[in-house]
Parts: sequence; C-alpha cells; structure tokens
Amino acid sequence: MKANETIQTQLAHRTIREFKDQAIPNDVFELLMEVARQTASSTGMQACSIIRVTDQEMKDKIAEVCNQEYVARAPELLIFIVDQYRNYQIAKEKNYVAEHASDMDRFFAAFTDACIMAQNVVTAAESMGLGTVYLGSILNDSEKICELLKLPELTFPVIGLGIGYPNQNPQLKPRMDMRLRVFENTYRSFESYLDEIKEYDKEMRTYYDLRDPDRPLDSFSNQVVVRFKQYNPKRQEILNAVRKQGFDLKVK
Amino acid sequence: MKANETIQTQLAHRTIREFKDQAIPNDVFELLMEVARQTASSTGMQACSIIRVTDQEMKDKIAEVCNQEYVARAPELLIFIVDQYRNYQIAKEKNYVAEHASDMDRFFAAFTDACIMAQNVVTAAESMGLGTVYLGSILNDSEKICELLKLPELTFPVIGLGIGYPNQNPQLKPRMDMRLRVFENTYRSFESYLDEIKEYDKEMRTYYDLRDPDRPLDSFSNQVVVRFKQYNPKRQEILNAVRKQGFDLKVK
Repeated sequence: MKANETIQTQLAHRTIREFKDQAIPNDVFELLMEVARQTASSTGMQACSIIRVTDQEMKDKIAEVCNQEYVARAPELLIFIVDQYRNYQIAKEKNYVAEHASDMDRFFAAFTDACIMAQNVVTAAESMGLGTVYLGSILNDSEKICELLKLPELTFPVIGLGIGYPNQNPQLKPRMDMRLRVFENTYRSFESYLDEIKEYDKEMRTYYDLRDPDRPLDSFSNQVVVRFKQYNPKRQEILNAVRKQGFDLKVK
Repeated sequence: MKANETIQTQLAHRTIREFKDQAIPNDVFELLMEVARQTASSTGMQACSIIRVTDQEMKDKIAEVCNQEYVARAPELLIFIVDQYRNYQIAKEKNYVAEHASDMDRFFAAFTDACIMAQNVVTAAESMGLGTVYLGSILNDSEKICELLKLPELTFPVIGLGIGYPNQNPQLKPRMDMRLRVFENTYRSFESYLDEIKEYDKEMRTYYDLRDPDRPLDSFSNQVVVRFKQYNPKRQEILNAVRKQGFDLKVK
C-alpha cells in the first residue's frame, strides 16, 4: 500500500531539538491554531487551552524546569493545558455552580483533549516543513509551571511543544515491532521479551542521537533499565499538584 | 495561507458514528499501525499498546460499557492503553525490578503517548477517506474494560477508537474562537464568557447532530451546564481503578 502525502509526513517523524533562528510566519501559526481548533474534543466541551510562551525570560524559566537548555531557543513554545476553568465560569454565569467540574473524569477528558490537540498541531507543523519537540519535561515541576503561567484552578499543564524550522537532520529512530504492541481482543504477554526484541536491541545500537553524536545509543533493553532507575519526587507526586489546582482526586 | 492536503484533512475532521458494512483492507490497517509505530513517544520508551477488538461478543460488551450501541458496529475497534508492563518485564529479565514503573509520572507519560498515538492514527485514517469516532466512554467502567481485555498490572485503558468507511456526512461542528483558548505567556480569563461566546452560542444552534437530526443542538453554554450535571461515580473515581492496576498514586 502506497503511503499518501499525509502518511509520508507521519512516517518521517523525528524529534527536532535545534531550530533555525527564524520565526514562524503569522499565517503559518494561525493555520496551526485552526488545526488545533478543529481537533476532536470530548463531548464537544473543548476543555483544553494553549499558552503560547513568547517572553524570553519565561522561556528561560521553563527551560530550567525542563532541564533542557534548547527549550529556551525554540522559536515557538506552546504549553497545552487541561482547562475546565473556562466552562466552569460559563456555567457559573448561567447560575450553575458545577461541582463536577473538579472531578477526575473531567480532568482526564481534558488531558486527553490536550494531547490529541498537540499531536494534531505536530502533524500540521511537520506537513509544512516545520520540526517539533515534545516536552514532557515541563512536568518535572508542574507546580512551578502552574505558577509561571498563572494557571487558575481547574487547569493543569499537560505537555509542552517546541516548533520551528529544523536546523538538524536526525536519523529515523528505530521502534520496536508492532507485533509486541498490538494485540487481538486481549492483552498478550510474551515468554521472553529479551528474545523478542533481540533484533531491535541490535538495531538501536546503530542509531546515533544528535545530542551525543559520538557514540551509538545503548540497546533498548538497557535504555529501559536506565530510564526506570531515574526518579524525581515532584514528577511522581504529580497528583498532589493536580489536587492543588482544585481537582478532587476522589481516592478512597 | 493555503492549507496543504494534510491540513485540509485535519480541518475537515468530523466524528463519524455510522460506517459502511465494509472491512478495512489489511494493507490499510497495516499502514495505520505503521503510523502508530512512528508516533513520538516519551523518552522513546513506547509505553503504550493497542488492543484490536475483533470478537463480536467483546465488541458488544464494550458497547455496553460505552452505552453507545454503534460501538458494536464499528468495523475496527481499537483500545489504546497505558503499558508499563512490557518495559517492566524487560527490566526484570535484565535482573532489575523497576519499582518506579508504577509511579504516576510513568502512568501519565504512557497516557500521553497513547493519546498522541490515537490522534496520529485518526489523521492517517482520515487521509485515506476513513472516518473515526473517539470513545472516551470506555472509561464509564474502566475496571470492566481491564477485565474484558485482560489487562495485566501496569496497564490501563486510555481511549477507544472506532474506524471505518463513513456512512454519514455530518456538518462540521462549530468550535469556539481560539481567542478564548490561546493565551500569551500567562492564562487569561475574561470578564464575561457569555458575552464572549454570544455569537458562538448562536452558531451552535444552527448545527444538526445526526444522532438527533430533527432539531438543532442547544447553545454551547447550555450544553456546558447539561454536561456538568452528568456524573458517573465510576468515572469520577477512576484513580481507584488506576491504583487497582498496580500504580502507586503517591497521594499525600
């Protein structure tokens, strides 16, 4: 099956961390926001928003939270957020105080909306020759992000996104076979994962990450161990930050 | 700025709930899974998976959870899931018992991965003339979904997706102006949201939902109130189900 242009764009996805010193034209940005606007949304509630960070001092502070200096240099820096605040206010103006606005199902619906909106923007950006980098690292300190962006109650940061014209050309990063990730009807586990990913482990060692171009990446299974050893209490305790933003965790 | 083909597809997004009685050819499905595979993934860990539901009895049961009978008729029904189980097993085979695999930052990273993968599949599907419907309703009873799909510890359902050839042609659903959703540097709230969405409220009343084609939809602000009045304890208490799947909520 021949991939059409859209799918060719999607299959060519790579993370771009270094951008040309070139702003994104206004009409291109507007088009990205129009794509964001038309993205599917849970029950049509449109309960997510975007903070466009243009202030350099703010960018620097966010880069500090991310612990990634390239974040400060991204020509566009967007933070996608859960936003039940807006609809809560709308209901309030209609004289309805929506106690359920703070429930975790609303949080997750909005969180999902924010993610799929971000991915729609990524695909649109890449289709116009732009590069993107997702910044899950904004959650290294979600309270700090809430404070910097002055996020009101019933909002919460989900993911950051850097966008710009690519100034690097990374290899396509190897992925594991979908046989290990797509299952029919019920979850399937495997006798030995290391056996199953033997070839993939090898393939990963042929990949050179431009952040460390002098040596190939470690095997996938070694990367897994290294990643699991990392921990950050502020990331792990994210639900306390969620609660601080006014959500009711309803944990028994 | 003229929208390219990809963006035209994205701007034409509508939810499709009724499909032709026509299977998706294998090569088309394979291409969708290849797009899923190449989707960005947090720290490259690929910690999400897909359950492809092909068994009609399973579809019926999931439709029951969703409380949407059309779910049972979707030619393809995919459930995207958080999956830290696979990498946990990989680490274990490497003699590392990853206590941090159950932390909530891993849960959210995988949840985000699952959502952006779903949206990438949606765009790819729509670019090939397929229609899609997101099913947030699988979380009406997430424990039941875990049970039906036999989801092991450290996995969790995120969102469902129905895919097929459209057998309906809905209007484009009106969305609020992005002026209300994109803010520069810090969150912006508005004096009166009802004033701001006056035109949008009107526009929404010109939209006919094919689920109830005899009358236009209610204004957006009225929809917000109606939606906030709905509640479902199993949805609200989703974090208890998350904990039951082995995640450590780390709530103080």
